[in-house]
Amino acid sequence: MNPGDRVRVDRADRTYDGVVLPSSTDDHLVVKLEGGYNVGVNRADADVTVLEEDVYEIDGTSADESESTVEFDDDLPTIALISTGGTIASTVDYRTGAVTAQFDAEDVLRAVPDLAGRANYRGRVVANILSENMEPPIWQDLAEAVHEEIEAGADGVVVMHGTDTMQYSASVLSFMLDTPVPIVFTGSQRSADRPSSDNVMNAVCAVEAAKSDCAEVLVCMHASESDDACALHRGTRVRKNHTSRRDAFETIGAEPLGEVDYDTEVVSFRRDYRERGAADLAIEPDLESDVELLKFTPGMDPAFFDVVEGSEGLVLEGTGLGHVHTDLVPRIEELIENGTTVVMTSQCLEGRVCDRVYDTGRDLLDAGVIEAGDTLPGTAKGKLMWALANADDVEEAMRTSLAGELQDRSVPWE
Amino acid sequence: MNPGDRVRVDRADRTYDGVVLPSSTDDHLVVKLEGGYNVGVNRADADVTVLEEDVYEIDGTSADESESTVEFDDDLPTIALISTGGTIASTVDYRTGAVTAQFDAEDVLRAVPDLAGRANYRGRVVANILSENMEPPIWQDLAEAVHEEIEAGADGVVVMHGTDTMQYSASVLSFMLDTPVPIVFTGSQRSADRPSSDNVMNAVCAVEAAKSDCAEVLVCMHASESDDACALHRGTRVRKNHTSRRDAFETIGAEPLGEVDYDTEVVSFRRDYRERGAADLAIEPDLESDVELLKFTPGMDPAFFDVVEGSEGLVLEGTGLGHVHTDLVPRIEELIENGTTVVMTSQCLEGRVCDRVYDTGRDLLDAGVIEAGDTLPGTAKGKLMWALANADDVEEAMRTSLAGELQDRSVPWE
Repeated sequence: MNPGDRVRVDRADRTYDGVVLPSSTDDHLVVKLEGGYNVGVNRADADVTVLEEDVYEIDGTSADESESTVEFDDDLPTIALISTGGTIASTVDYRTGAVTAQFDAEDVLRAVPDLAGRANYRGRVVANILSENMEPPIWQDLAEAVHEEIEAGADGVVVMHGTDTMQYSASVLSFMLDTPVPIVFTGSQRSADRPSSDNVMNAVCAVEAAKSDCAEVLVCMHASESDDACALHRGTRVRKNHTSRRDAFETIGAEPLGEVDYDTEVVSFRRDYRERGAADLAIEPDLESDVELLKFTPGMDPAFFDVVEGSEGLVLEGTGLGHVHTDLVPRIEELIENGTTVVMTSQCLEGRVCDRVYDTGRDLLDAGVIEAGDTLPGTAKGKLMWALANADDVEEAMRTSLAGELQDRSVPWE
Repeated sequence: MNPGDRVRVDRADRTYDGVVLPSSTDDHLVVKLEGGYNVGVNRADADVTVLEEDVYEIDGTSADESESTVEFDDDLPTIALISTGGTIASTVDYRTGAVTAQFDAEDVLRAVPDLAGRANYRGRVVANILSENMEPPIWQDLAEAVHEEIEAGADGVVVMHGTDTMQYSASVLSFMLDTPVPIVFTGSQRSADRPSSDNVMNAVCAVEAAKSDCAEVLVCMHASESDDACALHRGTRVRKNHTSRRDAFETIGAEPLGEVDYDTEVVSFRRDYRERGAADLAIEPDLESDVELLKFTPGMDPAFFDVVEGSEGLVLEGTGLGHVHTDLVPRIEELIENGTTVVMTSQCLEGRVCDRVYDTGRDLLDAGVIEAGDTLPGTAKGKLMWALANADDVEEAMRTSLAGELQDRSVPWE
């Protein structure tokens, strides 16, 4: 059995038919199902029968650059395409098989022919993970890869990423990198094999955004249920707000920063942004990974605070303006006295934390809790990881907008 | 110093001026500040000077019913007003001082004169807490009080509640009670002393909703930033989505169930609801309080799962369609094997959990995780507390819509 064969996989609980993809380990088989999704199968648990050989041509695990027929066009910008896995990357993987190696311009164009003529491409694989498995060390690898590509002359970067944790990755990279060119995250809510797939339009719009004037970390995904435009969300203000819709991503507390019209290919912006070339390229890739996020809900077991004892950082998702049960306040004060930096955000999502209004909030401020304003909870976690490793004054950093994460400066009710 | 006196409170860190309110303990002083908020002051930590005596007339800690001048009107329905505390209740408390006792119709009308002529009122205080301190035992007291009032003939119930945890209380009461009359939660985002206070309009609209035909647990709060209407949200589908706006509450995944026009007093409904009298009054007040909610974010410490070892229930707020890091799956499987009921919800808020699409989801289902569909995470926590104490088949209960908490029955992408 080889990559490209159509097989039947029998496991104790179910049976799949699909095409074998190249896999980085011998223990596991990766099978692309007819619905378009990839499943990982532990060989020890499964009987595999080849139904048909070589149904798909797979190029092998490394691209053969000598055969490349895509010529470099001096008139076009160069865009680096960096893959971390997820549904959108599985399109490329499927046809090129290059899931464990560099993939080249030819692989990219074979996978998404609509990208042709828009840019010169450099392909690069940083990881091939389900995005729920994203972790701080991979963020560091990703930031380093983006930095290298820009240093090597990329005019823009497109990061292909699973949608589940895209917002966390886009926001933490916003703190790790100063960039003179666009860094555009995109993904796919529907696999390439589905008629409703969003992968081609999202990839095309992301490349157009990466060629634009906006040198920020952006998320580029469907703006609505129709196929007319992608929204460009600032990486620190975006949230996956729907489990399955193609327009799942929303900018919280504002309109999206901009939009890419799929027909006209015009990239337009509604608000101020950092322009191409305004910042010098820089990377501060260190992250303090000993940072947790806890969401407060009524009846919460205070023992969760034992787990964070001795941690470097804790982001709380409080109620309303930033509250927790008052019985927890002494426990939080103790954490802070023992060196944990504690940051308050709100589970409301919209509006900003303000702990000066009510008693509980004032007690939390007295205990040393830092208000994160309207920073989103997930963004605050990544920012705190970054600030603890890089900022001279962590409290000052958390109160300052470093990458557009703090936007609502209004005092409540005024 | 007595309730009603204007005082200055000096603490090590700050000084307040305000009016002393009756307090249920001698150790603490409750002071209403000029901004309208109440602060609790530990007497041991503060110097208190009386600035002026008897600035406000306070009725004492129990209403003197013999002096009541409000006559019962046979032509009007009877509405029970139950107070649990919060900004809206502090209006009533402020003028009546009846924070630790029953308050009567006269107190209610003195506090909100606009309520006159709309109903006969019965007042009742279940708690006087900051809503971030809401806990399962108070939910039980509240459900019992609502049940008693309806049993005693109330044609509708209005629950005055702090906004921070109103959604949690409204949803859990939806499971604890079968009701033949409306149970309407309302609160206030701005104190009565502020020109922009929403307390009068919210109270009036809540009373109108409590007189309506919709025998469900509802949340009644400002529908927009203007003062024209309150939205009626189903208690299991509502979320405080803004920290400070008066229209902070939103129905997730649908339009609000209905609306109360403040000018015309017309209560209208957009969707089907349970009609007045359709259900017999019943209460199942038991709650299994040993239920936790954990939100998954990248880099999460698996040690949080040690805390829930041996717990009766765990609600997970996963990413996307309902995922967590695959390294956590065996840990979750172990919990389930040891008797913990584990329920999956999504941090996306919109859309429904579907763990049949991707590998991680299928592994979670194999481990025994129960999908909560589009049940909101906070609602799922209260429902699981209720189901573990009352349902014969907890899994079946979690998959069934008992109080409108499950509404999106669509299969993703179809």
